[in-house]
Amino acid sequence: MDLSRVRIVLHEVRSSENLGAVARAMKNMGLSRLCLVNPIADRHAAMRVAVDSEDVLDSAQIATDLVGALGPAGFVAGTTSRGIEGRPSMTPRALAEAVSRETARGEVAILFGSERRGLSNAEVDHCHAVVTIPSSPAKPSMNLAQAVAVVGYELYLASLASAPVEPGAPRASAEALERLYDRMRTVLLAAGFLSPQNPDLILSELKRSLERSEPTPREAELWLAAFKQLERATKS
Amino acid sequence: MDLSRVRIVLHEVRSSENLGAVARAMKNMGLSRLCLVNPIADRHAAMRVAVDSEDVLDSAQIATDLVGALGPAGFVAGTTSRGIEGRPSMTPRALAEAVSRETARGEVAILFGSERRGLSNAEVDHCHAVVTIPSSPAKPSMNLAQAVAVVGYELYLASLASAPVEPGAPRASAEALERLYDRMRTVLLAAGFLSPQNPDLILSELKRSLERSEPTPREAELWLAAFKQLERATKS
Repeated sequence: MDLSRVRIVLHEVRSSENLGAVARAMKNMGLSRLCLVNPIADRHAAMRVAVDSEDVLDSAQIATDLVGALGPAGFVAGTTSRGIEGRPSMTPRALAEAVSRETARGEVAILFGSERRGLSNAEVDHCHAVVTIPSSPAKPSMNLAQAVAVVGYELYLASLASAPVEPGAPRASAEALERLYDRMRTVLLAAGFLSPQNPDLILSELKRSLERSEPTPREAELWLAAFKQLERATKS
Repeated sequence: MDLSRVRIVLHEVRSSENLGAVARAMKNMGLSRLCLVNPIADRHAAMRVAVDSEDVLDSAQIATDLVGALGPAGFVAGTTSRGIEGRPSMTPRALAEAVSRETARGEVAILFGSERRGLSNAEVDHCHAVVTIPSSPAKPSMNLAQAVAVVGYELYLASLASAPVEPGAPRASAEALERLYDRMRTVLLAAGFLSPQNPDLILSELKRSLERSEPTPREAELWLAAFKQLERATKS
């Protein structure tokens, strides 16, 4: 597995200590690509904690919105401590297997929520998979950097099991899928299928069903073209 | 596996932040028994970091020598970042298997060295097994609390091993999918998206992409309802 195709995305990380500790855990586990979405933590202060891992912080990308941060990733996994209702969670070990397959055909992003509130449902909607680290019901919520360490550990182990993986079909980028979903929202709202009060309630179910299919770039294009045509037909 | 038979022993832990973070990682992973050998860190200061895990610190045992701390343990494993010459290292996963066996017959201690210098050869001499967390040669040495998190994670997984497996999601019937595809054909033909000469050429690509997702009955219903509504909107 090519770990350089894996990007760790921290959404609104608050604590500089945590940010530094994440960089350190990444470096331990052979991960080098960090992306920070609207960080509250201070990179300079994080350096103190990022022992011998300053390069991870130095080269970290800063993004102002999540979709931009996910960018070219064809596979996005979001971590949650309690799981999300209606979405099956995978273990870090199953994630590592999935990432082995996915890095053979494109970029991967693994998303961690902010320390206080984790990932929201809206943020998890951008994810193809939900990952939950098994933990005691008495205290399920892990420290951010420790969670990165555990997930990174499974990825690193999988990267050592160097059996070459057959590349699967290429996957549509997160960006292409966002364009499709935006169009679906517009068309299905105009058609009166989605509720104007909460269009994403039903839309997210359709999204999930499409995402599980791992659409190729061509399929994402086809669906987008179909909805564009339906939009024209609806207006006429 | 009975995790209450596992004791985490920290030898000369220096940083109060690390001590608190160790308590937190232990609590996440169902571990409650902590023993501190000649701690330099301050338990009171550690409380600030040990979110919801103060009980682990409160009940921690303090020892003045290593042998006393290992006490009744019939199996002692020592963690090192680089391994010890002449002693084979096991992975945390192999450790978890060993601990499963050992807790069935007695007490187990897992020993972590101080942050600066790890475990000395003399300390490792007290151990039945040496454990090394696989990590990148570019930076093998892990943060103490992150190392406890990774080892604890493997122990916790092993303790779950007998848990029943979740059944997969139900799948939409072939009939329900046929109804959906018929409706898609009608609507996308009327909208001018599919060619009247050969509508199934493109439709089959959309079908394949949907089918790969193994839609649930509810998802098939939702897609059908969406296309019915689009049909109405197109006609009006």
